Amino acid sequence: MSTENGPAPAQRPTRDRGVTGPKGFKAAGVAAGIKESGGLDLALVVNEGPGQAAAGVFTTNQVKAAPVLWSQQVLQERKLTAVVLNSGGANACTGPEGFQDTHATAEKVAEVLGVGAIEVAVCSTGLIGERLPMDALKAGVEVAAKELAGTDQAGLAAATAVMTTDTHPKQSWAAHPDGWSVGGFVKGAGMLAPNMATMLSVITTDAVIDGDTLDQALRATTARTYDRLDVDGGTSTNDTVLVLASGASGVAPTPGDFAAVLTAVAGDLVKQLQGDAEGVTKEISITVTGAACEDDAVTVAKTVAEDNLVKTALFGSDPNWGRIAMAVGRSQATVDQHRLGIAINGVTLFEDGHKAADRGEADLSGRDVAIVITLNLGEGEATVLTTDLSHAYVEENSAYSS
Amino acid sequence: MSTENGPAPAQRPTRDRGVTGPKGFKAAGVAAGIKESGGLDLALVVNEGPGQAAAGVFTTNQVKAAPVLWSQQVLQERKLTAVVLNSGGANACTGPEGFQDTHATAEKVAEVLGVGAIEVAVCSTGLIGERLPMDALKAGVEVAAKELAGTDQAGLAAATAVMTTDTHPKQSWAAHPDGWSVGGFVKGAGMLAPNMATMLSVITTDAVIDGDTLDQALRATTARTYDRLDVDGGTSTNDTVLVLASGASGVAPTPGDFAAVLTAVAGDLVKQLQGDAEGVTKEISITVTGAACEDDAVTVAKTVAEDNLVKTALFGSDPNWGRIAMAVGRSQATVDQHRLGIAINGVTLFEDGHKAADRGEADLSGRDVAIVITLNLGEGEATVLTTDLSHAYVEENSAYSS
Repeated sequence: MSTENGPAPAQRPTRDRGVTGPKGFKAAGVAAGIKESGGLDLALVVNEGPGQAAAGVFTTNQVKAAPVLWSQQVLQERKLTAVVLNSGGANACTGPEGFQDTHATAEKVAEVLGVGAIEVAVCSTGLIGERLPMDALKAGVEVAAKELAGTDQAGLAAATAVMTTDTHPKQSWAAHPDGWSVGGFVKGAGMLAPNMATMLSVITTDAVIDGDTLDQALRATTARTYDRLDVDGGTSTNDTVLVLASGASGVAPTPGDFAAVLTAVAGDLVKQLQGDAEGVTKEISITVTGAACEDDAVTVAKTVAEDNLVKTALFGSDPNWGRIAMAVGRSQATVDQHRLGIAINGVTLFEDGHKAADRGEADLSGRDVAIVITLNLGEGEATVLTTDLSHAYVEENSAYSS
Repeated sequence: MSTENGPAPAQRPTRDRGVTGPKGFKAAGVAAGIKESGGLDLALVVNEGPGQAAAGVFTTNQVKAAPVLWSQQVLQERKLTAVVLNSGGANACTGPEGFQDTHATAEKVAEVLGVGAIEVAVCSTGLIGERLPMDALKAGVEVAAKELAGTDQAGLAAATAVMTTDTHPKQSWAAHPDGWSVGGFVKGAGMLAPNMATMLSVITTDAVIDGDTLDQALRATTARTYDRLDVDGGTSTNDTVLVLASGASGVAPTPGDFAAVLTAVAGDLVKQLQGDAEGVTKEISITVTGAACEDDAVTVAKTVAEDNLVKTALFGSDPNWGRIAMAVGRSQATVDQHRLGIAINGVTLFEDGHKAADRGEADLSGRDVAIVITLNLGEGEATVLTTDLSHAYVEENSAYSS
């Protein structure tokens, strides 16, 4: 059903379904007693096939949590039957003992599902540096296995069990007219930055697709979605995005169709991350045009996105474009101050190196802020999403260990 | 009076004298009406010789303010008679008209002093993007020229006139037993970062020294003092450090002696910047040892210094070393998580990739926090100074345009 002019339009993503939206998947979310709060803290997502193709992308941080090291290893086979995720502890900086804990977790899941541990990915999120309570975790796996279901409620429970400082679960699902769909959940509210946020995300699809194609599609998608959200420059030790394909729809989409739906779902998940970021009062998009190349556009946009003086000005609803110009200039990208232009919420305040309007003409009273930076040097373009730096961000990150 | 084992010990820097401490210098600080507050906003420092050697280092930001472009140009001669500085406006992003304003300022100083404009450096600080009120500024230059004096009060007035969000003037002076001295002032409280803070600093000396030697000494000193303060990652459009040598002591120190005293004064000025940084409640030193090289040590220390999750944890007096490990790992330096160690205020919390003590054992209740990060990879070492990210920082930078 692809049109001659490109991929067929998929259904717009909806947020009432997630990983159990595509056929062939079951999920569960239970309270295993890992979190002190007693809330849901263990999620299980199971691919019942017939296919088992899978792919993953992981944090670029050199300090990698044990579950990242484990999941990177098992994904070399591009095949997964299950993903087990826990909140309440990151299992990072825990040495070989922490890696053994991850291995034991995968073994436990493998045992209850009757599969090999090499088919089980593990994700953890929470405080760095503490061992996980393995007895509670293993008992939780048994409970979760019994509660596995393909319902929307089960998918939502899984999305809820991975939350840390998130205020609500985040999921997205989009169906293609050809009869296949993509669904997923994501968690993450702080330590959100370049090359993926403190973020765990599991995406499922019932499309028929092989592991290599899935891997390529995932990398292309994350580069322009997850990688372009930058809340605070932090890159977690645990960042993981996994995609599992069951093939249960029996439909093999074109790579273009699949990429379009995957990107729609990933983009919707990332938008939800932005909207629920720690302390957010402004949802800011920073678009850079006319850069010498796309990499330069991303570099400029991220430098502005991470700049505390820009972020505090925006929290104060102050269109202080001078701070944006400062951040543009200190980026490692090529910039010519005499060609530089800056517009905020549609008002050009600075153009070709000259003030173009009084800053008061830009209205920043709303929640959404759109910044467009024009470099006038080439064709490179990119948009990065970020949030402001508010009192609530400071409060949340100074008052609690997370 | 150098000893056989190295430079003679100079007097410890004192803060009751500044640019007029060394012989051959006069200064003034006046209220020219540039600042809306009506406070002191124009400073003049004049070198009466007999020597006129000078050197400067400037912002690495690609967006450079007009006074930076001007001063870089005139300093090619390594000779200065005067420096004129204003607060109340950065004269950045003001196009060719802004550059003409700077030129006219230098011409005005040259006229009242009877020298050439090429001997006059100009520094500006304040809001980016607005033209300066040139009539007020030129009239201020005339008043300042009449008030020039070699007294401590005149030096203090000059140090006061460059303040923006600084809460107090910052100066330092140190004398060498051989009969020469180095003095200076500095301003800067935010936009303080790598490769120099939003900072203006003028340093004077009555040592007999040529321009090239002065330039080398200044670059070596700033690399290990000004460049190693990183409050918020911001690199201003206006950063400038100038050093002027009058030769009025008649004493030519050894390069080693001169560098030692210059570094002592610069280090004392930087310590004052740290202590008066916007919103500071903690004065933090981050020492990295065992890096593969010194550059790697600086990279790791700055990545930790700029990390908002680390900075907010420290504001909350929380020894959250996991966030430090995260920041170390996301730096561009070579890191091995299995060799990594972290100590806070003398307590080793993480060692060789393992938790070494409960975080509660580190006491962060005081104002000073010393973080030592051990990479165990080589001999590279560096210390970077920073501050915490507090509610007051957010308040100061969101409530006012600066």
